[in-house]
Amino acid sequence: MERTGAAAVIIGNEVLTAKVQDLNGPHLIKRLREVGIPLQSVETVLDDVDAIVDAVSRARRKARYVFTSGGIGPTHDDVTVRAVAMAMGRRVVRLQEMLDLITSRVPEREVTPEGLRLADAPEGAVLLPQAGTWFPVLAVDDIYLLPGVPQLFRMQLETVLARLGGSPVSVSCLYLSLGESDIAGVLDRVALDMPHVAIGSYPEFDPAKDYRVKVTIESAQQGPVDAALERIVTGLPEGAVVRRE
Amino acid sequence: MERTGAAAVIIGNEVLTAKVQDLNGPHLIKRLREVGIPLQSVETVLDDVDAIVDAVSRARRKARYVFTSGGIGPTHDDVTVRAVAMAMGRRVVRLQEMLDLITSRVPEREVTPEGLRLADAPEGAVLLPQAGTWFPVLAVDDIYLLPGVPQLFRMQLETVLARLGGSPVSVSCLYLSLGESDIAGVLDRVALDMPHVAIGSYPEFDPAKDYRVKVTIESAQQGPVDAALERIVTGLPEGAVVRRE
Repeated sequence: MERTGAAAVIIGNEVLTAKVQDLNGPHLIKRLREVGIPLQSVETVLDDVDAIVDAVSRARRKARYVFTSGGIGPTHDDVTVRAVAMAMGRRVVRLQEMLDLITSRVPEREVTPEGLRLADAPEGAVLLPQAGTWFPVLAVDDIYLLPGVPQLFRMQLETVLARLGGSPVSVSCLYLSLGESDIAGVLDRVALDMPHVAIGSYPEFDPAKDYRVKVTIESAQQGPVDAALERIVTGLPEGAVVRRE
Repeated sequence: MERTGAAAVIIGNEVLTAKVQDLNGPHLIKRLREVGIPLQSVETVLDDVDAIVDAVSRARRKARYVFTSGGIGPTHDDVTVRAVAMAMGRRVVRLQEMLDLITSRVPEREVTPEGLRLADAPEGAVLLPQAGTWFPVLAVDDIYLLPGVPQLFRMQLETVLARLGGSPVSVSCLYLSLGESDIAGVLDRVALDMPHVAIGSYPEFDPAKDYRVKVTIESAQQGPVDAALERIVTGLPEGAVVRRE
């Protein structure tokens, strides 16, 4: 399988137990879309080494870039560094560069043994400097270990995205007055004939809306999008299209 | 591995491409917490048969109850039924009971071939009647195939939850004036000694807040929660606790 795009692993007992609502997954989805990096999956797992190892291994097999959120602090429930190292078959080492950063910020005699855990990383990890803060982003190969705290996650994500490339996709939408069962035949045929165009169909059940189904058509270029849209419109009964976007 | 609690698979190109924000995952998390069914993972995947088969297989291996969201309509991108059947090693069959429901609602001559796809299900599937609507919930063993449309998802989820059992957990919180590095040692020891108590540590970086870390302590009974809380408080320097909840 070719490794393309990105995959995310949200490490969060607090999310799965409804103590906080995850903001990092939705934010990552939005930003990756904006910069044009396709996202393959977002998996939210417990703060459990085995669960994280599994999820990170899976993410690495399918995606070029892997983002993790959470579990990189100094407490007992912060097991992401260890799990990522295991998923890569590497040791956990203490990064001298991070030790130097920590001790330059905190007088050495006040650093607790647990505080030093912030310098632990999978072997081969690098620190990406962040504008406006002394705290770097921890990255190993194309795995980015971001913090769970939303304001820190967002800041670190921008540091990472500035280094990656992507290309935005072209999208068109059709709003239709027919139900899904009545348009499925047409969509089927076009989807089958044009595998490089992604066609989505989303029913709307709110009677106050002026349409019953929204169809999205997307591709890397506008040309195939226009062609698919024309084929769909031509295949539908007259008057079925409420509007285009 | 013992299969406990629940796991969710959100099927959603539209979510991963940022066209809509997923509401079903967060709602499911909240409702499962309220009824006391522990949730192990939420995985959001593309509308792709292989990706869904993988995610559903994984969910089934670890969880007793599996919830899917999306991909059960009549269009080409609705592949959840087929994927769930494959994950279970079963055929897809057309359910006569569902055919009867559809034709009782829509005059038979107006039902399109695609509309009949709504009656397709993994072999062995059952239909759970829903109060207030003719449309039933599709379930096979303990996999519940819920629709992606949020208002329908919520309604069907309640139908399912009314049939399942759970027991709410006990939780206490400590708000602390110290940073994570300074409390990690104490939390480590208590977490190690009391494996049946889940201890979470969540740093707060907003200087307007009156605490720096929130610690959550939870277990099936209140007794172990109280014991762990006392041990943590005793282990911390005087004045570290801002408040308890």
